Amino acid sequence: MSFRERLAEAVAQRGRLCVGIDPHASLLEAWGLTDDAAGLRVFSRRVVEELGTEAAVFKPQVSFYERFGSAGYAVLEETIAALRSAGALVLADAKRGDIGTTMAAYADAWFAEGSPLEADALTVSPYLGFESLRPALDLARERGKGVYILGLTSNPEGASLQHIGGEASVAKAVIDAAAAESRTGGHVGLVIGATTASAAADLGIDLSAVEGSFLTPGLGAQGATPEDLKRSFGNDYAKVLATSSRDVLKHGVREGGMLERFREVSAQL
Amino acid sequence: MSFRERLAEAVAQRGRLCVGIDPHASLLEAWGLTDDAAGLRVFSRRVVEELGTEAAVFKPQVSFYERFGSAGYAVLEETIAALRSAGALVLADAKRGDIGTTMAAYADAWFAEGSPLEADALTVSPYLGFESLRPALDLARERGKGVYILGLTSNPEGASLQHIGGEASVAKAVIDAAAAESRTGGHVGLVIGATTASAAADLGIDLSAVEGSFLTPGLGAQGATPEDLKRSFGNDYAKVLATSSRDVLKHGVREGGMLERFREVSAQL
Repeated sequence: MSFRERLAEAVAQRGRLCVGIDPHASLLEAWGLTDDAAGLRVFSRRVVEELGTEAAVFKPQVSFYERFGSAGYAVLEETIAALRSAGALVLADAKRGDIGTTMAAYADAWFAEGSPLEADALTVSPYLGFESLRPALDLARERGKGVYILGLTSNPEGASLQHIGGEASVAKAVIDAAAAESRTGGHVGLVIGATTASAAADLGIDLSAVEGSFLTPGLGAQGATPEDLKRSFGNDYAKVLATSSRDVLKHGVREGGMLERFREVSAQL
Repeated sequence: MSFRERLAEAVAQRGRLCVGIDPHASLLEAWGLTDDAAGLRVFSRRVVEELGTEAAVFKPQVSFYERFGSAGYAVLEETIAALRSAGALVLADAKRGDIGTTMAAYADAWFAEGSPLEADALTVSPYLGFESLRPALDLARERGKGVYILGLTSNPEGASLQHIGGEASVAKAVIDAAAAESRTGGHVGLVIGATTASAAADLGIDLSAVEGSFLTPGLGAQGATPEDLKRSFGNDYAKVLATSSRDVLKHGVREGGMLERFREVSAQL
């Protein structure tokens, strides 16, 4: 079963709200937890317990686990496994990008059968050229995994690089390449800022040519509303995997708070 | 002491050959080791024992440790600590790149005092915009660490993205930003392919404006010779941190083989 099919099934059952797991130091503190791997473990387990059977997709932000080295990675392994056992898909937000055997090693780390970090999808970065990602694209296809490529992001610094080239911009090159890849099967998605679909149109980018899905961080804490997403993506809204991290996680300070907020936001999507 | 000063001292004492540690599956096999964290540990320890007090800088390729999840990361932690105890600098080749608190978390992971993965320098990727790297640039400066930014790479797929924009190319934008940053103190280096310095000139890029150093993978196994490096970088050759991985590591099949090859290549630089 391809990742595209698995995602469609999960979204049909659980909705399109992807929960970002971003356990940064200030969140651990707000939850009354210690800023170490033990605190991270409690935090992650509570997210799994409260939302694991509710959300279609979870997006753990790998940096917040890497902060604690191998101990943090052990928590990440547990978290990924627990979420998948709860029937959710796990999209590891790691933004990996390298070449040749090194890229193949990243693909193995996140996609190989039985790898301790085996997830369902991975974010990747195309600075070394779209085709440098080939080992991940190929293994993803073989194993029914998804690859989300950084395309056009909504952070204020993104345009300084992604808009270079004008009518033949970096973002357009990456998104066109992803669209072509998506049409040959496999699942190539794109990371597209929740508020940047209109910028895409300005750059002459045809998002409708992408058969994969759009991971759109920025809902809630970063300022975008569900209405922004619908307006911004128009006919392509059905492909949107809306992501919220802090706006859900901050309600974890009381039991049941995350679930309540998750359902509230999810109902608006 | 800034990373620039630490690097200059290390290179003055031990030479400019940086040893890449790329324990991919075929190398583990060639060394008669198992393709698991235990094999990785033996491999890494042998590199430390044979070369730890010889080379100025080691560049572990993080993907090959990530393949084994938290167990691989535990080996990476040991390896980094052992190399630093042996007086070498450790440049973690992780090509991290994200925004805001996420980028800050990566900076903490690799640069914070006492972090289990604390290294001396890190490779980063600028797809999200040069300024998205700010948390790493700032923490590096504060802690005497180095940041090596992907600039103009020699892999065949690199030009498809890095050359976009022609006279105002992506690579030029990144390298110009790095040059400006390097002139304000701190250590910003660039990843520049061993054979791409002439492409830099074609793109109107002034490498001499960068006060940091150039990490140049591609020596040996990827086809570049020490003469190529000297010719290619010309007057900027003094800033080159030449990197060889497989060409040194493949001699690890016999005791003393890596040291012999390291000295042989090092003498030509």
